[in-house]
Amino acid sequence: MSSTETYVLGPNQYGKAECRLVRVERDTPIHVLRDLNVSTQLRGDFAAAFTDGDNAHVHATDTQKNTVYALAKEHGVASPEAFLLVLAGHWRAQPWVSGTQMSAEQYAWERIGAGTPGSGHSFARTGRETRTAVVQTDGADTFVLGGLTDLVVLKSTGSEFAGFPRDRFTTLPETDDRILATSVTAWWRYTAPVPDWDAAYAAVRTAMVDAFAGTHSLALQQTIHAMGAAALDAVPEVAEIRISCPNKHHFEVDLSPFGLVNGGEVFVAADRPYGLIQATVQRAGTPAEPRAWTSVPAFA
Amino acid sequence: MSSTETYVLGPNQYGKAECRLVRVERDTPIHVLRDLNVSTQLRGDFAAAFTDGDNAHVHATDTQKNTVYALAKEHGVASPEAFLLVLAGHWRAQPWVSGTQMSAEQYAWERIGAGTPGSGHSFARTGRETRTAVVQTDGADTFVLGGLTDLVVLKSTGSEFAGFPRDRFTTLPETDDRILATSVTAWWRYTAPVPDWDAAYAAVRTAMVDAFAGTHSLALQQTIHAMGAAALDAVPEVAEIRISCPNKHHFEVDLSPFGLVNGGEVFVAADRPYGLIQATVQRAGTPAEPRAWTSVPAFA
Amino acid sequence: MSSTETYVLGPNQYGKAECRLVRVERDTPIHVLRDLNVSTQLRGDFAAAFTDGDNAHVHATDTQKNTVYALAKEHGVASPEAFLLVLAGHWRAQPWVSGTQMSAEQYAWERIGAGTPGSGHSFARTGRETRTAVVQTDGADTFVLGGLTDLVVLKSTGSEFAGFPRDRFTTLPETDDRILATSVTAWWRYTAPVPDWDAAYAAVRTAMVDAFAGTHSLALQQTIHAMGAAALDAVPEVAEIRISCPNKHHFEVDLSPFGLVNGGEVFVAADRPYGLIQATVQRAGTPAEPRAWTSVPAFA
Amino acid sequence: MSSTETYVLGPNQYGKAECRLVRVERDTPIHVLRDLNVSTQLRGDFAAAFTDGDNAHVHATDTQKNTVYALAKEHGVASPEAFLLVLAGHWRAQPWVSGTQMSAEQYAWERIGAGTPGSGHSFARTGRETRTAVVQTDGADTFVLGGLTDLVVLKSTGSEFAGFPRDRFTTLPETDDRILATSVTAWWRYTAPVPDWDAAYAAVRTAMVDAFAGTHSLALQQTIHAMGAAALDAVPEVAEIRISCPNKHHFEVDLSPFGLVNGGEVFVAADRPYGLIQATVQRAGTPAEPRAWTSVPAFA
Repeated sequence: MSSTETYVLGPNQYGKAECRLVRVERDTPIHVLRDLNVSTQLRGDFAAAFTDGDNAHVHATDTQKNTVYALAKEHGVASPEAFLLVLAGHWRAQPWVSGTQMSAEQYAWERIGAGTPGSGHSFARTGRETRTAVVQTDGADTFVLGGLTDLVVLKSTGSEFAGFPRDRFTTLPETDDRILATSVTAWWRYTAPVPDWDAAYAAVRTAMVDAFAGTHSLALQQTIHAMGAAALDAVPEVAEIRISCPNKHHFEVDLSPFGLVNGGEVFVAADRPYGLIQATVQRAGTPAEPRAWTSVPAFA
Repeated sequence: MSSTETYVLGPNQYGKAECRLVRVERDTPIHVLRDLNVSTQLRGDFAAAFTDGDNAHVHATDTQKNTVYALAKEHGVASPEAFLLVLAGHWRAQPWVSGTQMSAEQYAWERIGAGTPGSGHSFARTGRETRTAVVQTDGADTFVLGGLTDLVVLKSTGSEFAGFPRDRFTTLPETDDRILATSVTAWWRYTAPVPDWDAAYAAVRTAMVDAFAGTHSLALQQTIHAMGAAALDAVPEVAEIRISCPNKHHFEVDLSPFGLVNGGEVFVAADRPYGLIQATVQRAGTPAEPRAWTSVPAFA
Repeated sequence: MSSTETYVLGPNQYGKAECRLVRVERDTPIHVLRDLNVSTQLRGDFAAAFTDGDNAHVHATDTQKNTVYALAKEHGVASPEAFLLVLAGHWRAQPWVSGTQMSAEQYAWERIGAGTPGSGHSFARTGRETRTAVVQTDGADTFVLGGLTDLVVLKSTGSEFAGFPRDRFTTLPETDDRILATSVTAWWRYTAPVPDWDAAYAAVRTAMVDAFAGTHSLALQQTIHAMGAAALDAVPEVAEIRISCPNKHHFEVDLSPFGLVNGGEVFVAADRPYGLIQATVQRAGTPAEPRAWTSVPAFA
Repeated sequence: MSSTETYVLGPNQYGKAECRLVRVERDTPIHVLRDLNVSTQLRGDFAAAFTDGDNAHVHATDTQKNTVYALAKEHGVASPEAFLLVLAGHWRAQPWVSGTQMSAEQYAWERIGAGTPGSGHSFARTGRETRTAVVQTDGADTFVLGGLTDLVVLKSTGSEFAGFPRDRFTTLPETDDRILATSVTAWWRYTAPVPDWDAAYAAVRTAMVDAFAGTHSLALQQTIHAMGAAALDAVPEVAEIRISCPNKHHFEVDLSPFGLVNGGEVFVAADRPYGLIQATVQRAGTPAEPRAWTSVPAFA
């Protein structure tokens, strides 16, 4: 196809996605479990594979998968962030690699069976939010993002929405009492390693949840900003946080045709459409670092 | 289409599926939340709609939806089972209705924001298993099933699998130490109303989880039987329990090509295929009641 | 757990679910592709595994998986039904097996690249409905079901809904012009082998689609009955057909607040709740055969 | 929360997501159907809502939803791109709006029921790939992206993978004959309006499919590049194309334990992990336009 001579290869990356890794620490009868979904992506001198099918530089994605499991054995999984830093350290040292993106989801488990012989090695998935982490490198620079997704929260009162503009297409009445519900997705950027990645994660999560609960909401926008600010309050090493929140509408059912007054007691939880509010809260004076966010699903 | 004269209408039912209902009790500042997905189905004298498009007997599915919300206001939602009994009581009394199937999923929420002003009305989805319930009526008879789905549990040791037959197509080695993981779906039949449906549910759930943890497993079949027996032990009003468990395989990764010994520490969590084991455990001497199970997804 | 002495094992089955099998016929440069998701389940003398963890009779689910792939090589996959009959023939002959359930989904592909060198071996998923099949055996008896799911069809007019009863909770207006849309799931039972399983499938599918299109609908119930009758018309070996149809509501948007008249042109496609209509159409005089339907998701 | 004084609001946007819109043209008995999922997002002077809960500038997401339906009535839906341009034209003219992102998915339907009275208004979902489109504005500038997702293609031969580096963690053998399968997601940027958006879409799709089929593949990277180049060849107004392709691995099953030689006939279609290759192909000399890609899920 001679025409391709006039085309150029733009940004690209490749790797292995969704390596499901369960790492058990079993040095004592009280086992410790890490349950991750790991993806690795490489950037660098790989153009010949695209343009000529020349794989001389292409570390096979199968090799990338093997590396996840081998390094999990050799180094353990102290936390998602710590493990991704190990992976990034491995790949950045390889020929032809100029940048990397290592990412993971972590699923939470709780211990079960207290009082039974299996209590040290038995677990149930909690099903709460999914913890996420991204480590990116660009040459010698390293960037760490923490995150979470599917954190579903709801307030059954303490939420208003009024004072918005009314135009030809506006029909929504104002309200001073509604259900506010959302499923929080967030990513936050660390400017420095923290002593305990799990503790930092827990601090951000708790701060956001408490801010959601504690904010009398005039708009989901306001609640998002409060959650972001609370996260920055909680962990000094967090420079900025991106938050994406669908407004999971709960409509008060009109029961008047049945001679009933609803009174904020009976709601239909709607699926689609939904409001979608996305915002970044940043620590003033901290320089932006777009390379930390390369390829991260976002709205920047 | 004259040919249809020679055909007959067999079993049929119809209704409204997946009415998402959130019911708030707000008599005090400590709100109580019930979050359900309700489906209603009617059986009876509805043949003319199928054969002639005659809707004279067809309670519209839209009406069925309205009824869910109106009765939720009038009667509250004390529990999924209690609310479905209210719905069934309404529909069984209608003309042309000879049988009903009322079913619900219930999603669990936990309180958040302790110490904040919103703590009485703020919640997070726990994401643990989904609670299910089915109430069926056939004429004057009423049947109640409790249930759960997506209860994901795992043992990181204490599970063997050996002694199985070997034929031409058998390659699986025997093992005396593996991860055992499953996502439990169960339905159980109550032979009598219980004083507290929530307490009965909790008792069955706890019994199953503890049995999973406490059983040294020689086969997932054995663990399922132990979970079923524990559920029957826990609640005398439960006559039988159906359990369906995918064997969510966690394969120990072969690290020998990398000069490493795994030692039961590094696993890949596989998606498909999966073992699938389904069984019923019944209280001896209790008569079967197939009408309780009509249209319930099952393996009987 | 001594209490379990008083419990009995009820109906049970086990096997391997969702073996993804792609079978290529490559005897000529024009390759033929079969893309299946195969599940196998055994019933029989397996109680000791449940009650005692004794696996002496338990054909491992891993062995069942291997058998799918080995028999696909040895016998080919002429059609889902033909291949499931091969699998059933294998398993019914094994010790301790008294009954089997072999099932499959088949995904459709179309040829692409006409005029290119790869046209004989290049395909795109069509994404139309999924074809399903179930073969069950009980001792010496064999039963074959054909089926389909996710066949999404829509009429933009030619659908009414009126004449239904009005009670305290009825608010739905009557309509003589609405969108009718559904996603058809159906299973049908063959009373005898057909010469060409693919042709029989195509005939049922075409009959149902054409009946949907050709029926001026007074109720979705009526349309379902017409589709079922058309299927029985099309293939004499089909004794009965079960059809399950969600009413995928498309609501005409009220544009009057904006000074516009909709005129049946602008609709919102709703997700939940949805009507759900399920019915069986049977050839008169054909005996019922409940064993053909064991464990098949249904509403009988 | 006085600490928030030191924080700043970074990039943000908001709107209504997933407005399901079905638009019927019914001027003649041969109806025309457009089935879209529309999302609208606004950027501009909305900071006060975040920082102070002041909604004076916040065009309610409910209003945004209404606008979708009202403008669909007034202007019709000639194509996803044309309709999004209408929406963008409306919103960019509103106070406080400095930028917009209008996006849509379009689902394909085919006509059914030829020869029946309903053939002019009856349709089946084809289930092939989903067409996507994004229109963004930034001040006076407008950008149009076309796209598709879930275009699943497979070659049963004509694919090799060899010559890749081997390190300590490499176990993958080289192969000169494998199945190559992927699910293509692509977005392409138009530098100018085209006379017929549907025709341009069809041209890009056909070009990509034919390139996939016609390329003897030495690496999925090479195939992706060929698909991108073919798209640029096909439509001169396309400046660049981003392609993201999971390598949907189909592993040849090792049948040697059963005394069988596979011969490239029996494969297991794997779910996870999967290779993931992402690349951009650009027309040389065309300036980059990052504003066209703001918030578009990507890997730039």
